[in-house]
Amino acid sequence: MPVVSRDDSFSPLALLGVGYIGGSVALAARAAGLSGRVVGYDPDARAVAIGRERGILDEVADSPEAAVRGARLVVLAAPVASLAELARRIAPALETNALVIDVGSVKAPLVHAVQATLGARFVGCHPIAGTERQGPAAADPSIFEERTCFVTSDAPAARRFWEAIGSRVVVVDPEVHDLCMAAVSHLPHVAAYALAASLADALPALAAHPSAAAPTTSLRDTTRIAGSSPAVFRDIFLENRGPLLPLVRALEARVSAVRAALEQGDGVALGALLATGQATRERLMKGG
Amino acid sequence: MPVVSRDDSFSPLALLGVGYIGGSVALAARAAGLSGRVVGYDPDARAVAIGRERGILDEVADSPEAAVRGARLVVLAAPVASLAELARRIAPALETNALVIDVGSVKAPLVHAVQATLGARFVGCHPIAGTERQGPAAADPSIFEERTCFVTSDAPAARRFWEAIGSRVVVVDPEVHDLCMAAVSHLPHVAAYALAASLADALPALAAHPSAAAPTTSLRDTTRIAGSSPAVFRDIFLENRGPLLPLVRALEARVSAVRAALEQGDGVALGALLATGQATRERLMKGG
Repeated sequence: MPVVSRDDSFSPLALLGVGYIGGSVALAARAAGLSGRVVGYDPDARAVAIGRERGILDEVADSPEAAVRGARLVVLAAPVASLAELARRIAPALETNALVIDVGSVKAPLVHAVQATLGARFVGCHPIAGTERQGPAAADPSIFEERTCFVTSDAPAARRFWEAIGSRVVVVDPEVHDLCMAAVSHLPHVAAYALAASLADALPALAAHPSAAAPTTSLRDTTRIAGSSPAVFRDIFLENRGPLLPLVRALEARVSAVRAALEQGDGVALGALLATGQATRERLMKGG
Repeated sequence: MPVVSRDDSFSPLALLGVGYIGGSVALAARAAGLSGRVVGYDPDARAVAIGRERGILDEVADSPEAAVRGARLVVLAAPVASLAELARRIAPALETNALVIDVGSVKAPLVHAVQATLGARFVGCHPIAGTERQGPAAADPSIFEERTCFVTSDAPAARRFWEAIGSRVVVVDPEVHDLCMAAVSHLPHVAAYALAASLADALPALAAHPSAAAPTTSLRDTTRIAGSSPAVFRDIFLENRGPLLPLVRALEARVSAVRAALEQGDGVALGALLATGQATRERLMKGG
């Protein structure tokens, strides 16, 4: 990434939660000349140690409040369930003109909870930067380049930050974001995990015939994202269950309909369902 | 494909059903020097005309019986539902030492039905060569190279044929084949079609927010095979419903379990289900 200007305008950066995405944000901010000094806090001593080793952190704070004192940018990168409480904790120590961002996959519940405490200083952000990797050891400053970053309000500072580290900023209402993510990301993950899990009982039979059970491209592609962290997606699904649940019910109904058509040998119903799937896919690939 | 020997030992080749896979088999056999003369039959005059134009067919017969007369290799490449009847029709005209193969994705019902008529002259075959493309215009002699071809009995002539056109031959019991295909191919197709179809009602909302609803890599990969022909997969699913139905029921149960866990906010159950999916996927990628 080219260093456009070493203006240090987001320094010190306080990183609360030293993981893959948070660590990558800090490395990218440093590489872009935005944040010459990074102060980190994480209750996990090992994450902090790796953060030091990897050059993510210059300094380690012993509390979130201590980390944010004097910070111009605060990155909330701890588990999403902890962020509302974390915002309340840091509020008294926060500079009045600090920018606070997060990096989570679900926006509405968090944005409403955190803005209640921090007001417009908080801008919900969701950089689309992969979820298969985990931990600060894998942090990579290049993962935001030419990727979309959704932001829930068009705050100039937030836009400038993400654009400076290479992202395309898309401003989106938190509710719209969560509905769209439920459809184009979370439901596919539900389907991939459910598909893979549904073959658990077949594993012994498949293992007995390795040459016939070699994984096909179809199986690889449809289940690839079931390789993602179960803990991360459990939290995302629960956090976004408002928009996600109706879609999971729709998926359940479609699978039930396939099952019923197979039971009844109903080729007309089955063909119609597959044709709906094919046609819907075509429109989805055009962005709806 | 290099021409190893122009021995013409599978000439004339009778092609019953002039489509993508059948046309590709004939082109590959010709390119490998196995079948200098190809006689075709298809009730669809347009398919036959394209077969002529593409150099798939040297001669067009006006009935399946006429096509197979004198043939050393008969390729049954018509819709699977028609093949048992087709075998009965051609049986009286067939040479006693002819080899008869098919190219279908489901083996047990067909192999039992056709062998009842043709005996060991028939060898069920399933070349793994893609199903997204259709029709003789797309026929391509290279699609079998370095791909697996399942054969349901280890007949030397069938093995020699597929190996000469570049395939890796795997001999497999028809029932084992169908169970494995149900798991590693057909169920993933069910999941992909059902997933895509379950988003049909969300299309207007997504279309209203194109920048937030842009298709993710997750959505692309999980639904890619829902782009396959609904008619082809309707027939495959129905043909293979014996092994497929229990797996579709398992998928239905897993999706229902996700729905129930979401409704109840049960993170423990949800996490366990996703962990099962992740672990099963890992084992599937190792071939069970």
